Amino acid sequence: MAKNIKTRAEDYAQWYLDVIKAAQLADYSPVRGCMVIRPEGFAVWEAIQRDLDRRFKETGHVNAYFPLLIPQSFLTKEAQHVEGFAMECAVVTHSKLEHGAHGLKPGGELEEPLIVRPTSETVIGHMYAQWVQSYRDLPVLINQWCNVMRWELRTRLFLRTAEFLWQEGHTAHETEQEAEAETLRMLEVYRAFAEDVLAIPVIKGRKTEAEKFPGAVKTYAIEGLMQDGKALQCGTSHNLGQNFAKAFDIKFLGRDNKIVHAWTTSWGVSTRLIGAMIMAHSDDDGLVLPPRVAQNVVAIVPIFKTDEERAKVAAFVEKVVRSLVGDEEFEAARTRQQGEVASYFFDKITHQRVIVDWRDARPGDKQFHWEQRGIPFRFEIGPKDVEGGSIMVKRRLDRAKEVVKLEKMTAQHLRTELAGVHQLMFEKAKKFRDENIRDAGSYEELKTILAGKGGFVRCFFKQDKSVEARIKEETKATVRCIPSDTAEKRGKCIISGEEGQQVLFAVAY
Amino acid sequence: MAKNIKTRAEDYAQWYLDVIKAAQLADYSPVRGCMVIRPEGFAVWEAIQRDLDRRFKETGHVNAYFPLLIPQSFLTKEAQHVEGFAMECAVVTHSKLEHGAHGLKPGGELEEPLIVRPTSETVIGHMYAQWVQSYRDLPVLINQWCNVMRWELRTRLFLRTAEFLWQEGHTAHETEQEAEAETLRMLEVYRAFAEDVLAIPVIKGRKTEAEKFPGAVKTYAIEGLMQDGKALQCGTSHNLGQNFAKAFDIKFLGRDNKIVHAWTTSWGVSTRLIGAMIMAHSDDDGLVLPPRVAQNVVAIVPIFKTDEERAKVAAFVEKVVRSLVGDEEFEAARTRQQGEVASYFFDKITHQRVIVDWRDARPGDKQFHWEQRGIPFRFEIGPKDVEGGSIMVKRRLDRAKEVVKLEKMTAQHLRTELAGVHQLMFEKAKKFRDENIRDAGSYEELKTILAGKGGFVRCFFKQDKSVEARIKEETKATVRCIPSDTAEKRGKCIISGEEGQQVLFAVAY
Repeated sequence: MAKNIKTRAEDYAQWYLDVIKAAQLADYSPVRGCMVIRPEGFAVWEAIQRDLDRRFKETGHVNAYFPLLIPQSFLTKEAQHVEGFAMECAVVTHSKLEHGAHGLKPGGELEEPLIVRPTSETVIGHMYAQWVQSYRDLPVLINQWCNVMRWELRTRLFLRTAEFLWQEGHTAHETEQEAEAETLRMLEVYRAFAEDVLAIPVIKGRKTEAEKFPGAVKTYAIEGLMQDGKALQCGTSHNLGQNFAKAFDIKFLGRDNKIVHAWTTSWGVSTRLIGAMIMAHSDDDGLVLPPRVAQNVVAIVPIFKTDEERAKVAAFVEKVVRSLVGDEEFEAARTRQQGEVASYFFDKITHQRVIVDWRDARPGDKQFHWEQRGIPFRFEIGPKDVEGGSIMVKRRLDRAKEVVKLEKMTAQHLRTELAGVHQLMFEKAKKFRDENIRDAGSYEELKTILAGKGGFVRCFFKQDKSVEARIKEETKATVRCIPSDTAEKRGKCIISGEEGQQVLFAVAY
Repeated sequence: MAKNIKTRAEDYAQWYLDVIKAAQLADYSPVRGCMVIRPEGFAVWEAIQRDLDRRFKETGHVNAYFPLLIPQSFLTKEAQHVEGFAMECAVVTHSKLEHGAHGLKPGGELEEPLIVRPTSETVIGHMYAQWVQSYRDLPVLINQWCNVMRWELRTRLFLRTAEFLWQEGHTAHETEQEAEAETLRMLEVYRAFAEDVLAIPVIKGRKTEAEKFPGAVKTYAIEGLMQDGKALQCGTSHNLGQNFAKAFDIKFLGRDNKIVHAWTTSWGVSTRLIGAMIMAHSDDDGLVLPPRVAQNVVAIVPIFKTDEERAKVAAFVEKVVRSLVGDEEFEAARTRQQGEVASYFFDKITHQRVIVDWRDARPGDKQFHWEQRGIPFRFEIGPKDVEGGSIMVKRRLDRAKEVVKLEKMTAQHLRTELAGVHQLMFEKAKKFRDENIRDAGSYEELKTILAGKGGFVRCFFKQDKSVEARIKEETKATVRCIPSDTAEKRGKCIISGEEGQQVLFAVAY
């Protein structure tokens, strides 16, 4: 088998790209910095969307859709916001292509340039100003799933691309307290999702003034740790105070008959989570999918040499599949359009499937194929297994093998096994994360740890934008967050010696 | 109650806009021709997506995501395609905003302008060329849910806007026959969806050469009839032959060891379907939602004067809600963030809900409020109903009222009632449609019918682009399709007298 994936030790950055390529998750597109999310990668995004969307709805939110293009003038209404987003954006200046002397050229110049949304606080603020008149119209609890663009110079698939997919929640409230409660509620939704679905342990915390969202009063985030010791921000939740309400005139008649500005929040996660998932769990053999986002939960590889063996194996495979997906689904799948890889819905709601690889290829090649795609379980079924009435079950996570009797292989058994894999993945990642949080009592110690093993460095720090800029310059590290768990802790700042908060530094993606 | 909706007879176009406004389905945005799809409208799109996505997956398709921006040069590779789409598109020419003398101005001019996708055949063709090498890589069966832009001059909410949401399926096949089978398969998926979910009867058929998609060999469509007698194209499916495969070099090594071009298809439906749904079913009192896309299937309006009455009514409402959604969901809903309108999931998969309107408003105002939003059933529950142990059930479709005993109001009963409403809506729309198909034996007859009652005019016609252009000029009508059911029929063309096919003419949206 040709080695098509560099090891993490050899070249971590190349390993990451090789894993993506081998699993066919994404490709670069012909437009600089934009990616194509291939079906295997998009299935992960769909699983993320399905689960998060349910969590949003269960906390009272509804979805809507706001326009892709934002008038240039909107961006300038919130002073910090424009500085954060104007410098790298796609600008639409014309409304058609015309025939010119040298082929087509832009025509129909617009009076005002339009920006492809880098985020939608501005245009959504403009609409909320029209929808909100009275305290009775509050809270407004809206989420949007969409594409956004930021013209990044250095791109990396999923982690940083010019265009990416995300969700952005935008809410408006009657009081400051309600807005803060919403900000924290969604932060907790993100934490629970990252841990319970992607099996990525994350630390909840608040961003420093230097690192907060342009236009926010407070920014909170969940931070994960990747296998190379770098941190990755997995989601953010912003308390925007009245900044955007004032910029866009979101006002309402309060219970006391006075007209006041609303309090707003915004919060988001993006396709970056797929990058986090890859970096947190995959190994030198390729992708390892957390079971709850795996489109295919089992790949069955039949093994046979003669037609007679094939018939025997096929009959046994049918029993296994029927046991897992039920007779109704097995029959329904017959009538569907299928290639040489047959697929059966294991779960009709999540669209998770069991597949059987009947392609004309060597069993070893098929094993390799599905291993690199990170499918939680592979079943090998050959003539000897049929005789023994059992299945050779291979677990992707740790290559554990187990012989399981056909009678035992029910849908319930598989569900339990999948839940077990999730738990193992979470614990493994948590152990790694916890082992890579180190304390520093001085700036020297901070630098030594960062230059060595990396990971999170815990220390006391007094916020100061210029100091943070210098530390970033010298170590590439930033304050990832002031962890919520220890938000009240105070100690001697490793730089100034004055009273500081407990923070986590790390080099981040 | 102030009359906020014009009647259809008074002003059909204004009625349409009034229905959308009263039901809060959509608003115009600050960017010309772009709309904001509000939560009530977006819920319909989500229901459409959920159902169609399942149908796509059950026919073997997977989802992926391709970039928003397309290099200008791509558009010119297929000769007909560029003429169809270059003339009204959003052109990105710059990659940032810079501070200039008069505020911000576009900076970082791009070497090649980029087009916001009007449709994605070109960029997807470019990617397929890289993915497809052998017949073993075929078929490729990919769908994309996304936003697209066409710089339309005259816009109308949902029906024609500069930006809209859609899905575009793009498939590549080994043979011409397979591509044609796929084109027809997806046309049938659209027909079944339109009729079984939106309750809109549609006619399947093929487009004339004059009306086909720019770059297609054959275009098929489903056509619906709106209440004003105009036709509306509800979905299209294109057999692209080898046109795009040749333009983008999608080639593969066939079973006979020869390298040949693939055969491709594309097919799509858009947020236009929401416009079709509104125009097909709504009445002078506002929106009428087909039950399968209604986010809220029941709105309960409690009626009480005193606190004592309120308590009694509340206890009874609780029994009704528990009976419909189950005790588990009733309890879970208590812990969720809620406004004065309590909501309970009736169906966890579709997110359809039962709501109870506890707002401090008059019962009549509440009835009016939910009626205009098209909710299939409203339950009125006052002290007398509590005493009788029954519910006053009002059906939105036809204002039918029925007193139903609490014991009878189970989830199963409601499901049956909702299915009944769907059936009634479909039959009503089908009766209207069938009554509005009229035969014409001559061009004079065609004109007379179109100038009178409108609807579909059935006649024999020999295809001729210039004749079709003239008829459109003179009558505003176009050939909507050559119906699939009667594709073999031949008769005397109403214009030329030569042999023609049976077609349907209509004025269309």
